[in-house]
Amino acid sequence: MLDATHDPDARSWVDSAGLSGTPFPLQNLPFGVFDHPVGGGAPETTRVGVAIGDLLVDLAATASAGVLDALGPALRDACLAPRLNTLMALGPDAWSALRRHLHHLLREGDPLGDAHRPAVEAALRERASVRMAVPAHIGDYTDFYASLHHATNVGTMMRPDNPLLPNYKWVPIGYHGRASSVVVSGTGVVRPVGQTRPEGVAAPLWGPSRRIDYELELGLFVGIGNEMGRAIPIADADRHIFGVCLVNDWSARDMQQWEYQPLGPFLAKSFATTVSPWVVTREALAPFRVALASRTADDPAPLPYLAHPGIAARGAFDIELEVLLQTARMREVGDAPVRLSRSRTRDLYWAPAQLVTHHASNGCNLRPGDLLASGTVSGPERAQRGCLLELAWRGTEPVELPNGERRSFLEDGDEVVLTGWCACEGAASIGLGECRGRVLPAAGADA
Amino acid sequence: MLDATHDPDARSWVDSAGLSGTPFPLQNLPFGVFDHPVGGGAPETTRVGVAIGDLLVDLAATASAGVLDALGPALRDACLAPRLNTLMALGPDAWSALRRHLHHLLREGDPLGDAHRPAVEAALRERASVRMAVPAHIGDYTDFYASLHHATNVGTMMRPDNPLLPNYKWVPIGYHGRASSVVVSGTGVVRPVGQTRPEGVAAPLWGPSRRIDYELELGLFVGIGNEMGRAIPIADADRHIFGVCLVNDWSARDMQQWEYQPLGPFLAKSFATTVSPWVVTREALAPFRVALASRTADDPAPLPYLAHPGIAARGAFDIELEVLLQTARMREVGDAPVRLSRSRTRDLYWAPAQLVTHHASNGCNLRPGDLLASGTVSGPERAQRGCLLELAWRGTEPVELPNGERRSFLEDGDEVVLTGWCACEGAASIGLGECRGRVLPAAGADA
Repeated sequence: MLDATHDPDARSWVDSAGLSGTPFPLQNLPFGVFDHPVGGGAPETTRVGVAIGDLLVDLAATASAGVLDALGPALRDACLAPRLNTLMALGPDAWSALRRHLHHLLREGDPLGDAHRPAVEAALRERASVRMAVPAHIGDYTDFYASLHHATNVGTMMRPDNPLLPNYKWVPIGYHGRASSVVVSGTGVVRPVGQTRPEGVAAPLWGPSRRIDYELELGLFVGIGNEMGRAIPIADADRHIFGVCLVNDWSARDMQQWEYQPLGPFLAKSFATTVSPWVVTREALAPFRVALASRTADDPAPLPYLAHPGIAARGAFDIELEVLLQTARMREVGDAPVRLSRSRTRDLYWAPAQLVTHHASNGCNLRPGDLLASGTVSGPERAQRGCLLELAWRGTEPVELPNGERRSFLEDGDEVVLTGWCACEGAASIGLGECRGRVLPAAGADA
Repeated sequence: MLDATHDPDARSWVDSAGLSGTPFPLQNLPFGVFDHPVGGGAPETTRVGVAIGDLLVDLAATASAGVLDALGPALRDACLAPRLNTLMALGPDAWSALRRHLHHLLREGDPLGDAHRPAVEAALRERASVRMAVPAHIGDYTDFYASLHHATNVGTMMRPDNPLLPNYKWVPIGYHGRASSVVVSGTGVVRPVGQTRPEGVAAPLWGPSRRIDYELELGLFVGIGNEMGRAIPIADADRHIFGVCLVNDWSARDMQQWEYQPLGPFLAKSFATTVSPWVVTREALAPFRVALASRTADDPAPLPYLAHPGIAARGAFDIELEVLLQTARMREVGDAPVRLSRSRTRDLYWAPAQLVTHHASNGCNLRPGDLLASGTVSGPERAQRGCLLELAWRGTEPVELPNGERRSFLEDGDEVVLTGWCACEGAASIGLGECRGRVLPAAGADA
């Protein structure tokens, strides 16, 4: 549902929010968590903020100044919390109320904004000057496999005659990931060491992985959860989603190949997962809802527990995702990152609401702050493949970079940048910001 | 290393600690967390306790009374915390100091115990009168597959000509489990609803699982963790283990069969995992360390990162585990639970320290309170099979109960009880208590 907060003509008195190309205009207002060192030798702590142009609003400072008092004590307390979980637990009505309030505070010529302008200005920080943190305490991290194109590509490499397993079009396939090693954009990713067994070798080898890959994914943060033993009906599932972020599910393909049977990926994934720091709310994405694009009339209809007219019509988010790479050599000579691929979340086979409902369908309890990721988002074209495994087709078709370098997998010093954008007629364009990570040499290896 | 706390001749002034058959004599002193309702309409909270005979010592009350002051402020604070995580993070020297102190407080004729007797007596509670809670905040739950016999049995059902996959004897196979649905012994387990596809059927079915199973497992609670990117050397790994518990990793076999390719078990496991409430410390288990029993000279030597002379000699815990079943009909007529199987943790193929080191070998950070489970503990004999899937051989050899009932999988009302015991020459026998759970009808089904 669109309201005044989506008005494409509204402008903020924060100048940089009106610059073309900012991911964070007044119509976005994503939430994040930043480090806020406290003085006197006390440990660092974190605070909740909302991004606007090149700045952020320190919501704790705003709350302390009384600017959020009209929203009531629960929302005020949520803005004073060190992570987003408290806000996430309050539910969609509270999220909307806070969003509307912030919209008015930051909108040019708004009476509310005018009244509180000095207090809000005092709470502004340059985004470039603060260090961001993982936005929520992530109780559990689940990774799905929702791209038909990715599943088909990977399946083709493994089983050329039988690429897609029989369950794929019925079950939103997913697995439990590792929550402890979810890190925020900008954190270095140490190349993992592990067991691999190249073809034709009898005993496995031990050493740094030689096949580090990124995976371009959309992350969903759970807002309100569900009680254990109680499913989430598909009609309600969207309301459980607080917002989205970018996820890079780093993967060690050689370790994965050796370890994954029969219980799935484990150490090949658990060394690091990077998330972008700003959570774009589901409400901000309201203008960008579309039908899923990859289903055809030949595909089986979703089972009733996953079916809903709202999903068929507008279940998907229409977000364009991009992967950029900057190698160490490019950085040395000042070359900008180059695009490796671009794909669209509407091309996923399962909608976010279907992932939520499936996850809770067995009675598994989701909690505020849980992270669900889509799996690699690939499209039908070669230029839409969301990981190097697919792009370089298991190393058989290395990617040629403009400076002559080639990549089948990532090298030490490679920096991967994921971005995401939403644009459509009649709405202000908004972005997800970026999810950045650089591959560092294996522990014990020469730097 | 054995010390005075293991002295088999030491006796407690708590009479029930000296009764033969108690799992919790003075030589055990396991830690747990119990609900402690606070008055005045405030929310319930939890406290740390230590079990002794039929009683427990409320450690928060003990700390508040000054009885733990000699241990210093860090240990005192850990005993005032609502979960065991704070204590777990302090490390083995602190755990030993607390254990020794509690031993002296509870030992008959000990000067320390005599001095503090009134305060400790005031902190005693009947265990039967308190409700226990999950002992730690579990940041991540990992389930391994460390029983060669279980892996071989299950593999034989799936691939009769190739039961054991090539990676099994090299890689401690494991997968990330679901932390949110770990519950404490006594919690009812609602039969999950989900997709299944019986053989010969084209489209999957939707409904309550018809193949609910238990899995008899040993749980390990991580004490001190590791920094992300830093491995845990095998020589140090034991020191990272705080203690053990019993784990029932409930499984919906029909859902598992349909969903598990290619990313492993997901909804078939995430509906519930039950843990026993008392964490028996690694130190209490010191008299019961033995070599792993299932490795033969033909097996490959562990890769160097998993090899250590201490593991080969005494890497395993020697715990005898047991599964008991009481059906609804048995309960109605007052029949006691019957034993389904009995197996030994020494029969696992991988030692606890190897699971810890492998888990962190890629740089994955473990945190205090993380739960690692062994996977189903089966032995080479039929009577040692740790789940119904194996015992009834996928339903082809139903288990006959003494009252004439038969089980291939669990029925609604079935209560499964896991127990564990340690006994050896020269040591007092100790137990792990019990891990109990009853299958409840699927949500929406008739009770």
